[in-house]
Amino acid sequence: MSKVAITTGALPGSRKVYRQGSRADLRVPMREVEQQPTRGTANPPVVLYDTSGPYTDAEASIQIEHGLPAHRQTWIASRHDTQIIRMKDNRTIRRAIGQKRVTQMHYARRGMITPEMEFIGIRENQEPEFVRSEVARGRAIIPANINHPELEPMIIGRNFLVKINANIGNSVISSSLPEEVEKMVWAIRWGADTVMDLSTGPNIHETREAILRNSPVPIGTVPLYQALEKVNGRAEELSWELYRDTLIEQAEQGVDYFTIHAGVLLRYIPLTAKRLTGIVSRGGSIMARWCLAHHKENFLYTHWDEICEIMAAYDISFSIGDGLRPGSLADANDEAQFAELKTQGELTGRAWEYDVQVMNEGPGHVPMHLIKENMEKQLEWCQEAPFYTLGPLTTDIAPGYDHITSAIGAAMIGWYGTAMLCYVTPKEHLGLPDKNDVREGVIAYKIAAHAADVAKGHPGAIAHDHALSRARFEFRWEDQFRLALDPEKARSYHDATLPAEGAKLAHFCSMCGPRFCSMEITHQIRDYAREHGQTEEDVIAAGMVEKSAAFRRAGELYVQQD
Amino acid sequence: MSKVAITTGALPGSRKVYRQGSRADLRVPMREVEQQPTRGTANPPVVLYDTSGPYTDAEASIQIEHGLPAHRQTWIASRHDTQIIRMKDNRTIRRAIGQKRVTQMHYARRGMITPEMEFIGIRENQEPEFVRSEVARGRAIIPANINHPELEPMIIGRNFLVKINANIGNSVISSSLPEEVEKMVWAIRWGADTVMDLSTGPNIHETREAILRNSPVPIGTVPLYQALEKVNGRAEELSWELYRDTLIEQAEQGVDYFTIHAGVLLRYIPLTAKRLTGIVSRGGSIMARWCLAHHKENFLYTHWDEICEIMAAYDISFSIGDGLRPGSLADANDEAQFAELKTQGELTGRAWEYDVQVMNEGPGHVPMHLIKENMEKQLEWCQEAPFYTLGPLTTDIAPGYDHITSAIGAAMIGWYGTAMLCYVTPKEHLGLPDKNDVREGVIAYKIAAHAADVAKGHPGAIAHDHALSRARFEFRWEDQFRLALDPEKARSYHDATLPAEGAKLAHFCSMCGPRFCSMEITHQIRDYAREHGQTEEDVIAAGMVEKSAAFRRAGELYVQQD
Repeated sequence: MSKVAITTGALPGSRKVYRQGSRADLRVPMREVEQQPTRGTANPPVVLYDTSGPYTDAEASIQIEHGLPAHRQTWIASRHDTQIIRMKDNRTIRRAIGQKRVTQMHYARRGMITPEMEFIGIRENQEPEFVRSEVARGRAIIPANINHPELEPMIIGRNFLVKINANIGNSVISSSLPEEVEKMVWAIRWGADTVMDLSTGPNIHETREAILRNSPVPIGTVPLYQALEKVNGRAEELSWELYRDTLIEQAEQGVDYFTIHAGVLLRYIPLTAKRLTGIVSRGGSIMARWCLAHHKENFLYTHWDEICEIMAAYDISFSIGDGLRPGSLADANDEAQFAELKTQGELTGRAWEYDVQVMNEGPGHVPMHLIKENMEKQLEWCQEAPFYTLGPLTTDIAPGYDHITSAIGAAMIGWYGTAMLCYVTPKEHLGLPDKNDVREGVIAYKIAAHAADVAKGHPGAIAHDHALSRARFEFRWEDQFRLALDPEKARSYHDATLPAEGAKLAHFCSMCGPRFCSMEITHQIRDYAREHGQTEEDVIAAGMVEKSAAFRRAGELYVQQD
Repeated sequence: MSKVAITTGALPGSRKVYRQGSRADLRVPMREVEQQPTRGTANPPVVLYDTSGPYTDAEASIQIEHGLPAHRQTWIASRHDTQIIRMKDNRTIRRAIGQKRVTQMHYARRGMITPEMEFIGIRENQEPEFVRSEVARGRAIIPANINHPELEPMIIGRNFLVKINANIGNSVISSSLPEEVEKMVWAIRWGADTVMDLSTGPNIHETREAILRNSPVPIGTVPLYQALEKVNGRAEELSWELYRDTLIEQAEQGVDYFTIHAGVLLRYIPLTAKRLTGIVSRGGSIMARWCLAHHKENFLYTHWDEICEIMAAYDISFSIGDGLRPGSLADANDEAQFAELKTQGELTGRAWEYDVQVMNEGPGHVPMHLIKENMEKQLEWCQEAPFYTLGPLTTDIAPGYDHITSAIGAAMIGWYGTAMLCYVTPKEHLGLPDKNDVREGVIAYKIAAHAADVAKGHPGAIAHDHALSRARFEFRWEDQFRLALDPEKARSYHDATLPAEGAKLAHFCSMCGPRFCSMEITHQIRDYAREHGQTEEDVIAAGMVEKSAAFRRAGELYVQQD
């Protein structure tokens, strides 16, 4: 494993800083972006939310064989509601004592502000008490398995920054375990807030273990995939017992949230018969096949209470799957989809009875004019539990560009209130994403999430936008690159036309050239006003001919100097 | 010029077809996409709107030295309202006789259905009378200079398909004339409905001539750029006379629409003083500088009536520029922007008095929650003249990905009613786009326009979506590629993981592999029902144990065969 190159080091012009909390072991990582001065006056650094973990900390020692430091261990142990049930590879495996509920929702409902909540409060620039109240209300979740102490806690809820998830995972066809660890590191480097490991091939357990021990972000899985591996792909041979064992296996490893397709009820399956594209969720189709083969109700639904008990004993959050989501625009917002959504709402309420945290998965493929209805129904039927959507794609005619077709829908539904957006890469519908696809997918979704934050009025998001715009207007090229979501690509695109270092100081770029730079002309107008002790308004309002003439001369000079 | 490779040939699986109109010389080009059969039953070809011109017609002979056939020549001549004022390079140059107005709006208002309108009716699958009425009302325009007879007429208006524009153009820094012709051909190959030539360097006249003679789509320009070249970049030395001569020069060449920044009034300039990013439109900043230098009102505004007379004599459409558009989210929807928009409305009404066709340019950089206001105000103040927006970008923090930040805004404003979307390439704000950037930009905007068409309920757009989804569900991989906006990229992404030809017949792809293909499982359910003479509902409703058992066996067999 150690032969694989893990990407480390800060992004250009950035460094890792930590904000200290109320206790020594509570340090919240941030990315501090240095800025150049403006006309000799210093510009303060811009501090950004940082998902990338110790990998971007120049002072951290990364050894993926050993995993990340287990800094949450003390927090968990000191709550005295869990016990070590086993040791494995020098790692303690914990479980709740007896029937205790060790979830963040449980603590929140009892009025406790946990270190996890304080951490998130600092991270999101919110009061810890607000964090607690949102979790207690079920409007936000903190996916944080007690067996994932390496985690840097984060929150998913519509009154916080919009989050994004990146899917990784090997399959029967390609990719190896160490590559998957690097994919996770790569995804969080560009901004993934959570990572789902959707591995379906062999070594599924070992891959997940390596990812978890090295992941500072919550890891989600679809336990059904591993269960299916255990019956050699024969959906009919799945059983509750086998599935339960898989849940516990993954719970002990530290998976933070499970996608569970418990809303695919037997009676909903016929509703998909007249669809253009039937059932397109893997989990949904597996359960549909099981239901039909046995002519029985979905065992995930009939065993929901037992599942809730397991989730409560490790603090695993539900991501209630949408197994009947539409697979094409033609099937959007249909009876099958909304029947399942109602059941997702029922299951949400039942999970909350166990203090288990819940988010709900949503579509998928939805034309723009039908997106809002998805959000409205989810808010109503699922009582404001966080919504977690895949896109949605707003058209089906652009395979190869579905990160874009779906970023449109994702931005919109994020604005409407979706708490987390599951990314789509350019390879969606066509093949397996490689590293570059992961980067393209993550950046497209950071754009969608950020555009949603801005539209929702998030002050931090707006400040980031303004900082970059100010750098652009002041021709601080280096700052423009550094403040970009992808500093490397921004710089390389600039340098493709103007590679000289001097061009980074130029008051123009290759798009318009020196004579046509509109922003430069605006500066000339402002400079003239400043030098003559006037506001721009005055220059015009005074309306004196000599002033115009003087400006004209100054302007000419400036152009000639350029 | 002949040494440059011009891209020709049909897109994969497609061929050029023509729909015959009421006269022999009225043949409307379409792209016919062949489909594979489903279980032996033929699928009809899908016929798509086609912007690519003769370049994708296997039977056309392309010689860019000679230009495209001037098939509109007869239509124009037979209206007997123009005269040949000069010959140039074997080309007739026409102008209206006397004060005649030779615009499509003029004809429309007099109740005439021109061949151009009939052509568009067939192209858009609308009644020619509807085309006429929309043009008469000013709600749609047909940019079609009488000196651009090579044009395949198209329409811009919100009751038709949403259109996209691609900008090309050399600059002082790079690119050559023949490259620009190929850029145009390249842009329309991927779907650009119009092309703006924004050249600013030397050879500006020759570049434009080559593009026009070879362009089947309307060409737009910003005449101010050429005027500025004539005064060596000194905005202060611009004059009405020089500008007027430039308009006539370009009118005679055949430019179909002019961007004219006549709404940048002297009194609006101070409104930009407190902006974060001042004036970012090149045309806007040039005019602002002129106004301040002379302390006079914008000469484009004061000479509006004379400009209208020129436009009416050649049938050039206005694209009234938005010189004070916001250059950052911080400046969106501010006083300066909306002051100019009101003036754009005033100018629209005045142009209509001359029967001159008008569209209005719009922003720019606008957060999602402020987009709708732009559309609403434009509809009201500009009396429903078509809106033509640049993006808008919904965040400023992603240089290198602004085709995506802006496709989000473009899709939304297109849905709200914008008639044409000006593309943004990944190089925006950083450098000059190369061919690949043009392709990425065009496809991102085809996605936005198409998503808008679907959301608006356009039956043809929805049918295209459904055809691709059906091909996907039926594992007709070749059809999925062919029906994609970018068939080449779709295929190459698929083949990156599964290159074998046999994989194009496989009932799965590399994403999930054979055992996890949800769509394949849905097929198994449907197949079982079909073979046993049952509907899917029956399979479940009957609820007989033996049926479940039989299905289970059939399912197993299927999996093993895979």
